[in-house]
Amino acid sequence: MQKLKEICMVDLVVAGLVAFDDVSTPHGSVEKAMGGPGCYSSVAASLFCRTGLVGVAGADFPAEYTKVLESKGVDLAGLQVVEDKTFHWKGVYEGDMNAAQTIFTRLNALTQFRAEIPAQYLGVKYLLVTNFDPEIQLELMKQTSAVVAMDTMNYWINNTREKLLEAIAATDILFINDAESLQLTGAQGLEGAGAELLGMGPKQVIIKRGAQGSMLFEGSEVFSCKAYPLEQVVDPTGCGDSFAGGVMGCLAAGKTMREAIVYGSAVASFNAEGFSLDRLREATPESVGERCEAIRRLTSF
Amino acid sequence: MQKLKEICMVDLVVAGLVAFDDVSTPHGSVEKAMGGPGCYSSVAASLFCRTGLVGVAGADFPAEYTKVLESKGVDLAGLQVVEDKTFHWKGVYEGDMNAAQTIFTRLNALTQFRAEIPAQYLGVKYLLVTNFDPEIQLELMKQTSAVVAMDTMNYWINNTREKLLEAIAATDILFINDAESLQLTGAQGLEGAGAELLGMGPKQVIIKRGAQGSMLFEGSEVFSCKAYPLEQVVDPTGCGDSFAGGVMGCLAAGKTMREAIVYGSAVASFNAEGFSLDRLREATPESVGERCEAIRRLTSF
Repeated sequence: MQKLKEICMVDLVVAGLVAFDDVSTPHGSVEKAMGGPGCYSSVAASLFCRTGLVGVAGADFPAEYTKVLESKGVDLAGLQVVEDKTFHWKGVYEGDMNAAQTIFTRLNALTQFRAEIPAQYLGVKYLLVTNFDPEIQLELMKQTSAVVAMDTMNYWINNTREKLLEAIAATDILFINDAESLQLTGAQGLEGAGAELLGMGPKQVIIKRGAQGSMLFEGSEVFSCKAYPLEQVVDPTGCGDSFAGGVMGCLAAGKTMREAIVYGSAVASFNAEGFSLDRLREATPESVGERCEAIRRLTSF
Repeated sequence: MQKLKEICMVDLVVAGLVAFDDVSTPHGSVEKAMGGPGCYSSVAASLFCRTGLVGVAGADFPAEYTKVLESKGVDLAGLQVVEDKTFHWKGVYEGDMNAAQTIFTRLNALTQFRAEIPAQYLGVKYLLVTNFDPEIQLELMKQTSAVVAMDTMNYWINNTREKLLEAIAATDILFINDAESLQLTGAQGLEGAGAELLGMGPKQVIIKRGAQGSMLFEGSEVFSCKAYPLEQVVDPTGCGDSFAGGVMGCLAAGKTMREAIVYGSAVASFNAEGFSLDRLREATPESVGERCEAIRRLTSF
């Protein structure tokens, strides 16, 4: 009999939070909307490959939200549902909407999360560990021999720097935003930060720059990708997660890293056009492909 | 007998100031160094095509400087030398060196400039009118049937806005920097500014963004070009002029506008590595070509 890990039914596992988001931007607001890196990343990835989600939700997470994930093809074998409320975040975007101001973060169900990749996912080739306590990230990473990508945030740089460095040393691909890359390395510019981060262990470092696009660092090579230009950003929540999910979904589908980054940018641009997953859900491989071509026209010569 | 205009010996005419520059940056300083848009643009252009310079110098402009221009192949039939001192500018760059603080501007010889394109240049196919009083720019533009490009600066936006708009309406290609594009149009972003500027008359608008690169607007298409990434900018003086000169030199040499913009970026990157024309003089078609390939590797997917 073949071992389970050899007949893995997904190409990519996304480990990430499932959340309620209260978000307010100059264009409106939502309450208890579906959110969290797990939802954004897995829905983005499932445009390109078979994706499984490992995360935790509270008993109050609506069946309606779970159905959205399922309807997009996300496998929920790894979604733990516990007797608690769902993780809940409230944030406000003002001005140029570069970063949200957090009003509250209620961990709720997250405190009961078991950092466990289900047996049927253990043979997976790609694992995306979105923003979590680096301790959890390390725990997840060591369970598979997959190509591992991780994301992080300023909180862990400030509070658990040593553990974070350990996680970064263990990952193959690091996603990090521009401000955090400078904060973590102390570098003056993104080129310097990218080089420093490569020195910490990852084979590939991807610095996210929001509306400015992204940069890939690999060996001595740098790739600079434009964001798809939008008339209006309605809500940037989840754009970094949609981007990472899109990138990893495309890698798992056999695209090159540069192509994957362009696709990730295109997916993230859809996400920014609506609150919660409203617009991301509507993206199709075709509509994403069209935006990739627009990015190509924007930069090719 | 063939008319003079039909046997024009240059491919591009650059009309621009010849200047003494006193410049101080965090990396050093120079006094009475060779400068001015005329020098930067014509030397950059002459890497790619036969270039003639129309400008004015004072009697004190050193033969040594003129020889530099000649040694780079710049034709000086249109360089007027008058009994006065050479235009003299002093500026200081601090911090991120995005913009110079002007200490003084002495017009000197510029007040005697005759806005006259020599007869032997009248059949030229491309004319670059660098930053001048828009009145002078219009005067120069109307003398040829060349494809005309112009640059400008904030001073004219503030002081002779109507005349400037007239010049912009008369030009084929507009070079303008990012801050000035926003100031002139009142747009919130560069995409909007580019579209507004196209509406003012030019067929192509090129917004210069310094270390951020440049953007081309043409019809409904946008091309975004990265700057060649430099370890250290020694002196940004003349980078915009080297860029414009490089672009126009390449257009005159038959390259596409997108290619020309990449070459212009590469040329400008050399200029930024030294004071005055020290590094620009050392650039060769080969070394510029290598940097163009590096820009391609940075952005292609």
